[in-house]
Amino acid sequence: MAQHRFDPDFTDHVIESMGPRASPRLRQLMTGLIRHVHDFARENELTVDEWMSGVRLLNWAGKMSDDKRNEGQLICDVIGLESLVDEITFKLAKEAKDAPTATAILGPFFRADTPYRKNGDDIVFDKPDDGEMTFMHGRVMDFSTQKSLAGATVEVWQASTNGLYEQQDPKQTEFNLRGKFQTDKEGRYSFYCLRPTPYPVPDDGPAGKLLELLDRHPFRPAHIHIIATHEEYRPLTTQIFDRKDKYLANDSVFAVKDSLVVDFVERKEDSRASLELEYDIKLVRNSC
Amino acid sequence: MAQHRFDPDFTDHVIESMGPRASPRLRQLMTGLIRHVHDFARENELTVDEWMSGVRLLNWAGKMSDDKRNEGQLICDVIGLESLVDEITFKLAKEAKDAPTATAILGPFFRADTPYRKNGDDIVFDKPDDGEMTFMHGRVMDFSTQKSLAGATVEVWQASTNGLYEQQDPKQTEFNLRGKFQTDKEGRYSFYCLRPTPYPVPDDGPAGKLLELLDRHPFRPAHIHIIATHEEYRPLTTQIFDRKDKYLANDSVFAVKDSLVVDFVERKEDSRASLELEYDIKLVRNSC
Repeated sequence: MAQHRFDPDFTDHVIESMGPRASPRLRQLMTGLIRHVHDFARENELTVDEWMSGVRLLNWAGKMSDDKRNEGQLICDVIGLESLVDEITFKLAKEAKDAPTATAILGPFFRADTPYRKNGDDIVFDKPDDGEMTFMHGRVMDFSTQKSLAGATVEVWQASTNGLYEQQDPKQTEFNLRGKFQTDKEGRYSFYCLRPTPYPVPDDGPAGKLLELLDRHPFRPAHIHIIATHEEYRPLTTQIFDRKDKYLANDSVFAVKDSLVVDFVERKEDSRASLELEYDIKLVRNSC
Repeated sequence: MAQHRFDPDFTDHVIESMGPRASPRLRQLMTGLIRHVHDFARENELTVDEWMSGVRLLNWAGKMSDDKRNEGQLICDVIGLESLVDEITFKLAKEAKDAPTATAILGPFFRADTPYRKNGDDIVFDKPDDGEMTFMHGRVMDFSTQKSLAGATVEVWQASTNGLYEQQDPKQTEFNLRGKFQTDKEGRYSFYCLRPTPYPVPDDGPAGKLLELLDRHPFRPAHIHIIATHEEYRPLTTQIFDRKDKYLANDSVFAVKDSLVVDFVERKEDSRASLELEYDIKLVRNSC
């Protein structure tokens, strides 16, 4: 079987060292991981120096991580792993008849304690000079029937034009640019926010070093985070992206999907916003 | 090409994000790594929770690593990666006509400042009660001609019977169980040491946790570390293993090779040692 000139029994030997009390799923994952890592090393004739460079990078990521920052996660993000795992998890949840929820990525800047606001409220408490005010609105509806869903919750959060979320930036009011909204009888939600702007992922650690060595930029295209929930439906966690963003085709963490790209259009006769974004959110019923 | 039900373009998209200034070797390695990591995730339908468990394990390893301990390296060791990379590097060096040295693994307990001793010296400064004294001797010779090599250096180090190397153990004399020897005119070296005993790799961190979850033991079979050098020959870094060791077939870091297994035999008429080990070291000429 082995298509290489190294010890053909080595990888099986490592895999067979697992004992009978290892859980079946961990055994499956470690078997796959060991095979791929060994194949990678053999196919590329990985040297000791190259391997040790990788070890140093990972140790550096661990040292830099704390409750405010997860650099190990960011390294996975810049090689597309978080987005891929998100796709896999989403597909599995969609296929499972009795999946209670669709697990999905929150990203590091979600806050569980975000307050409810009223439809039509403004979440821009500290308007930056270069911010473009946007009226965002739409309906939450049943994915299959297109029926409007009253009493659904729509939670949003976004960075300011300086690329920082409120908890990263001591100059922003607490809960600036975030809020929870409940849909009305017609399933509608609405609020004023900023047109989102692109920002770089933190690039002062090993993920940034890797991006630099790979001759890649650290920018994420402009986006708004959304979580929509309704008690009879599966929660949806997503991000929507501005079609005009220059980084749309090369998000540094590869989260853009075609269906998540939206258009900001001119809004007339509203002194509070010059742009408008209409976005309908479709939820899938529990146990569908 | 894609044999799965996920976005068939995703992996290429991530790989193509690398810019023109990435070095050719790094581009090759990252292309291979990204393909294998993505294939691993898709083949095993890796979930967000499983992936995040891996991120936490790696961050933990980074936090635990310092100048005395490299936990990221140890995680690689327990999945066989260090031994595999060692095999690859050794094979490449053997094949390269003009390789200046054969790079090889020193392990974490090598000390560059180990003193020279005289042939026949005893490196056991703190004899443990359960230690078996061994007279180790042999010749350093040319791999091709079997000619003895005078003036070669043989450096050795080993753990004591408590599983600790001298720098890990405040109760051991500095440089206990280590020494450098120079071969005589007949290419011979000799010294008194302990019969090595098995010991566990440090298992109080993520590598130990991984071993536990995999239902594997943390033990390394009894071994003696050796580096042999001669100015006209390629340096050799190796470990030799006791054939009678119970962990010989399942070293927790997979470093055992058949050719490195040795026999300790009874030694008579030497009040200083009851065991003897004869081991000849064969070196390959520079630019061979």
